[in-house]
Amino acid sequence: MDEQLVKEIVEDLKLRAERSKTPVPVGISNRHVHFTKEDFKAVFGADAEPVLFRQLRQPGFYAANEQVTIQGPQVAIKNVRMIGPYRTYTQVEVSLGDARALGLEPPIRDSGKLENSPGIRITGPKGSIDISRGVILSKRHIHFTPKDAEFLKIQDGTEVRVRCGAGDRTTVFERVLCRVSEKFALELHLDVEEANAAGLKNGDSAWIV
Amino acid sequence: MDEQLVKEIVEDLKLRAERSKTPVPVGISNRHVHFTKEDFKAVFGADAEPVLFRQLRQPGFYAANEQVTIQGPQVAIKNVRMIGPYRTYTQVEVSLGDARALGLEPPIRDSGKLENSPGIRITGPKGSIDISRGVILSKRHIHFTPKDAEFLKIQDGTEVRVRCGAGDRTTVFERVLCRVSEKFALELHLDVEEANAAGLKNGDSAWIV
Repeated sequence: MDEQLVKEIVEDLKLRAERSKTPVPVGISNRHVHFTKEDFKAVFGADAEPVLFRQLRQPGFYAANEQVTIQGPQVAIKNVRMIGPYRTYTQVEVSLGDARALGLEPPIRDSGKLENSPGIRITGPKGSIDISRGVILSKRHIHFTPKDAEFLKIQDGTEVRVRCGAGDRTTVFERVLCRVSEKFALELHLDVEEANAAGLKNGDSAWIV
Repeated sequence: MDEQLVKEIVEDLKLRAERSKTPVPVGISNRHVHFTKEDFKAVFGADAEPVLFRQLRQPGFYAANEQVTIQGPQVAIKNVRMIGPYRTYTQVEVSLGDARALGLEPPIRDSGKLENSPGIRITGPKGSIDISRGVILSKRHIHFTPKDAEFLKIQDGTEVRVRCGAGDRTTVFERVLCRVSEKFALELHLDVEEANAAGLKNGDSAWIV
């Protein structure tokens, strides 16, 4: 046998065993909107500011009280919540089921990568805007602190496999993007359909395998 | 090394390699209702008979023209299609997202296993019935002919892992139930949320891994 190969396989198995000991909390994203300050004011009024509804696990991120209607070529979806704070781009994240209902074919993207994504009409209590791009399906991803990433031997931008769910709905999601930042907390982000497919609730555990 | 163990591992790897060469077509189940003849007549009228809307891949199965409203404790869902022909039990299959909206907690079950499943109100153009049980989340499953099952070395009732989807949504579903019958055609049945989580369309391929 090739000793070098055996050594590499054993090292890989050890790494996988180590990673799979660390539970990663699951955070489930319902459809939501991120706003620039300018776009927010256009739909909620010049004097409005987003109001905290619920703090999220990612430090500084929150679900806001503010909700909008998004209108696609086919249907409108009401009560789509803003996630704050403001961003440098306005972005609408929906599930594939939502996209089919709206009549759109958004790409699967990491947040902020909006090239060639479809636009949509966003309506709030004080006005409507038509964004020319910004609708995406969120690419499955894990947020890591640099410390978590170092411990789990993960580099920013790499993709991993994640095992999650329980019993009849146990599922392995492949191609899960790893994002590392001082600003993050360890969390796997899935959309509602991905979470339901695996029978997951917010805060359940997933494992990198 | 233990020669017997090595032999078993190699046999298992060969079996997996053989199985993974055979694509299994994916069939996506939207929410639907199966009716007994009696329950069908109660909601569509004594003189009604189900009318073919679209033939399904499973021989003899079809989506019918007939649609009903299902009313849970929280909301009603309209336009839920009947799958024919008649069965010996009335059964409502919904997604986890549907179940949450309806306000129900149905179990994950193989078709016809309705013990301790919740009931629901079903309304058609000629009347309503309240079934005391019958709402389930369908357990992921593959239909095999005996010939397919023999070729793939699958026994009725066993569970397998299935890899499917493409690109960013590649997914492995575990605990997929195998059902073997002369009446079946080879097909993996997933619900809409499972299919969307893996980015699948009807007729896409999956592989037993």
